[in-house]
Parts: sequence; C-alpha cells; structure tokens
Amino acid sequence: MTAIAYLNGGFLPLADAKVSILDRGFLFADGIYEVAAVLDGRLVDSTAHLARLARSCGEINLTLPLSLDAVEDAQRELVTRNGMTEGLVYLQITRGTDAGRDFLSPPDLTPTLVMFATPKTIVESPAARRGIAVKTVPDLRWARRDIKSVALLAQVLAKREAQAAGCDDAWMVDDSGAVTEGASATAFILTQDDVLVTRPNSHAVLPGCTGAAVAALAQETGIALERRSFTVAEIHMAQEAFHTSASTFVMPVVQMDGQTVGNGAPGPVAARLRELYVEFARRTAV
Amino acid sequence: MTAIAYLNGGFLPLADAKVSILDRGFLFADGIYEVAAVLDGRLVDSTAHLARLARSCGEINLTLPLSLDAVEDAQRELVTRNGMTEGLVYLQITRGTDAGRDFLSPPDLTPTLVMFATPKTIVESPAARRGIAVKTVPDLRWARRDIKSVALLAQVLAKREAQAAGCDDAWMVDDSGAVTEGASATAFILTQDDVLVTRPNSHAVLPGCTGAAVAALAQETGIALERRSFTVAEIHMAQEAFHTSASTFVMPVVQMDGQTVGNGAPGPVAARLRELYVEFARRTAV
Repeated sequence: MTAIAYLNGGFLPLADAKVSILDRGFLFADGIYEVAAVLDGRLVDSTAHLARLARSCGEINLTLPLSLDAVEDAQRELVTRNGMTEGLVYLQITRGTDAGRDFLSPPDLTPTLVMFATPKTIVESPAARRGIAVKTVPDLRWARRDIKSVALLAQVLAKREAQAAGCDDAWMVDDSGAVTEGASATAFILTQDDVLVTRPNSHAVLPGCTGAAVAALAQETGIALERRSFTVAEIHMAQEAFHTSASTFVMPVVQMDGQTVGNGAPGPVAARLRELYVEFARRTAV
Repeated sequence: MTAIAYLNGGFLPLADAKVSILDRGFLFADGIYEVAAVLDGRLVDSTAHLARLARSCGEINLTLPLSLDAVEDAQRELVTRNGMTEGLVYLQITRGTDAGRDFLSPPDLTPTLVMFATPKTIVESPAARRGIAVKTVPDLRWARRDIKSVALLAQVLAKREAQAAGCDDAWMVDDSGAVTEGASATAFILTQDDVLVTRPNSHAVLPGCTGAAVAALAQETGIALERRSFTVAEIHMAQEAFHTSASTFVMPVVQMDGQTVGNGAPGPVAARLRELYVEFARRTAV
C-alpha cells in the first residue's frame, strides 16, 4: 500500500510530498509539530494534542490555516487513506514558503501544513515488556521548551549521544542537576514512599499530553503525585522510573547511566499505568 | 533571469528546488548553514566561511558530501549561472531524507546539500549610511550557539519582537545582562576610551567570520580591541555601536532600546571599518 501524506489541503503519495527549499520550516525551523497515536484506526487523546498545537502556534504567532476540527478531520482522513489501524500521525505547520530567505517574513505568508501516517505497533511493545536503558545528558535546549517547535537539533544530539553510549534513549538534566524531561518524553519516578514525581509545567519542559493523562489516571487509582523537579540521584534511589509519550505511551526505564533502576525490571506501577493508559486511549479515541 | 539553485549535485530553477517533507532539515532542524557575500561576482572571505561550515558539521557529526573545494566550486558556478555580481550565496546541509521520521537516523543516510543565490546591494547601503535602531531581547537560544545550525526559531522570534517594537534588528542579552550577539550578527561597541569591545568566542556565540575580519582590520589600523562581554548599560555609555555579518558587513547602530547611541549618527570608526572591510572583501574575494 502506498503511503499517503497530506500537504496543504490535498492528499498525495508520501514519496511525492515535497516543500520548497525556501520553506521556513526547512530554513529556520520556524514551525510547530504534533504527534498523535492511532489505535483501532482512531486518534488517541486528540483534544489534548490539538489544544497543545493551538497553544504552540499562538506562542510563536503562527496562524493555523485550518480550524482544529478541520485539522482533526484531515488527520482522520489520512488514517483512513493509509488504512492504518495502529501507529502515529505526524503533523507539522510552518510559517510558509517565502520568495527568498529573510528572518522576517511577510505577514500574509500562507503557512505550510503537512501530515503523514506511520504504522507502528505501540501496545504490544517488546521494549515496554523489557524496559529501556537511558542515559542522562545535559539539557542544551532553548529557553522555551514548552513550545513544540521543530527546532529539535538538541534532542537529536541527545539521542545520538545516548545511542553512542549503548542506551535506548536520553533524559535531559538542567544546570542544577534536575531532570527536565526525556529527549522526546515526559519523565517520571516512583519514590520509595510510593509517590509519583514529575516536573511541573513551565517554560523548561514540554507539557506532555500523555504524561498529563497518565498522571490523572495515577491519581484516580489512588497513587500520590508530586509535581516537582527531581535529581539524577533520586532516580537511582527510586523504586521505578518511566517516561511517557504519544509514541510509546508508558515506557519503563530499567537502567539509568549504566546503573539498574529499582530491581532492573519494569515495575508494577509503570506496568499498571501502561494498561490504564491503553484502556483510556481506546475508550476515548476519535 | 530565472533564479537557479543547487540541489544535491545539480542545478535547477529555484522554483523547482524542493526537498521531501521527510528531510531532516525540515523535521528536526538537523542541519547546518552558511551565508557568504558576493562582490564583483566573487565569494567574500570564502576560506573562513568554509572552515566554519566544516567545524559546524563536525560538531554535530554531519559529513559533508563534497570536499570544501568542491563546495566552493559549486558556489562559484551558482553565482555564474545566476549572473550575480553582488549578493549572497546561501548554503545548507542537512542529515538527509530518511524513509520515515525517527530522531535517530541510519548512519548511511545521504546528506542533502542545497544552495541558492540572492542578489542584494550590500556595499551601497542606505541603512549603513543612516544607521539602524536595535532592540535588546533575552537570548533564548540553546547552549551551542557556536554551531551554525538551522534551528533558528529563537532568532526569528527575536527579530519579530524587534520589528514589533519598531526596530530594525535585535541584539540578544544573556541572564547576566551581558550582550551575547546580534540576532544574526556579531555585536561591537567602541568605548569612550576608544577601545573596541566584542564578546570572545565560546559556546555562547557564533564565531563571526565578518566580525573576526573586522576585528583584525581594526587592530591593523591601531584600534585597541578587547574580547570580553559587555552589558546593555555599556552600550548606552559607548561612543559607537555596530554589528557585523556576511550580509551587512559593518552596520552602525544609532539607537538602542529607543535611546540614542553616541551622537545618534553612524560613528567614524564604524564607517572606517566598513570601508576597510569592503576593500578587504574585494581584494580577497575568489
């Protein structure tokens, strides 16, 4: 089956989906993106992702060319046209293609909107059963990490550094020694006192959609939640660690910087929250 | 005359120069760029720009698909094909187009290399004769500003903020109150003691090619140079302020945050350094 993409109002083979080299996404990373999971052919936690999309665009004064409802309709049509039952829908909006290259763009530039679908088995994940090894790296990112921009080079380098060290992923650590978040995920630990800890929203971290849903599910089941920063040392003293994202749901971390986390296997709380999230995702998908 | 671009080894009309939406430059800002001026149909300070290109690529482990000599040959052919005597040559290399979207890329991915030429009158500049108004803005950028990456959203936002305040450009200020650099230029002041001050190279600033050449020319003419940080307050006490870049050479700053700099007109040192740089540029262009 030919992979189909969406580009500025139309659908076409992904292999034919191209943008000008003058597109501001390509030249300036002047764009915003979202990734939503698809289960049973339906969009997971769509309202939260669309709200974050609108917020990110607003923060850089980028006007969405479609209403959020129309964006969702296009995402759903993309899923249908790709015959995808499980996977990811990627969406990116940029400030558009100018006639030349200038940091300042004409105010009437038409934004570029692209989407594509990537089939992926998310629920039945060998990595989630096994748990992953993570490396901590300095958080080199800019000061507005709450904006989900495509200026992702720091995250790319973080993941490359983790890979070079034989790890599966990276968590990023600020100058004070506190974890900010994963390179593309929200970081959680479960302390010895059975308290789930994750960093509160601020300009320092992306407000995770999956993380917010998982935190709410945890509280519904009676797990105490503290929204505060935590250090790398606290990870090593934790019962469990995991991270959350649209593409991995809840992913147990069983090794951090070469040291075992907890007992070195996915913990019961991460496993339970993963189940609860999958149920929530299936129940609320649109 | 049809504008001609270079794309992965070939020349084609700029309007036809497109990259896949899966290009890592578009999705992740996983790329490096350079801008070189052209005077008299020749490349200005080419060796310095190519050396910085190689350094930036090395810092993110991106392998140039061509030797630096071959890059320069392509740039020169691009200038010829565009019949351009004065303007800018833009060059961008990205980690290439993958089969899907993954922060981690296959090691054998072929980089994308694009170039285009923009005619521009640089030497006879009304703005340089008049001087420009600059706004200081917080420096929101990542920790590796020495890498000339296309992750330029912070710079775009800085220039938009300056524009919204009725200014021509932005200078960026770090948490300590020191100027790092212009949003796309190297910042200089001339103190009341006739000392030229500019920030030393580090991870906090881009090593400016034009700035380095201007600093060397200043020293050759007996102007004292101090490589240190300076504060916004020092700008207001300075005799002169200016910034340097490949696209503006030496640009006098006559207003900062609404206050007059020096006597409110381009100063003699900036004007002299601009002349010297134009002579240097013409003499050494290739």
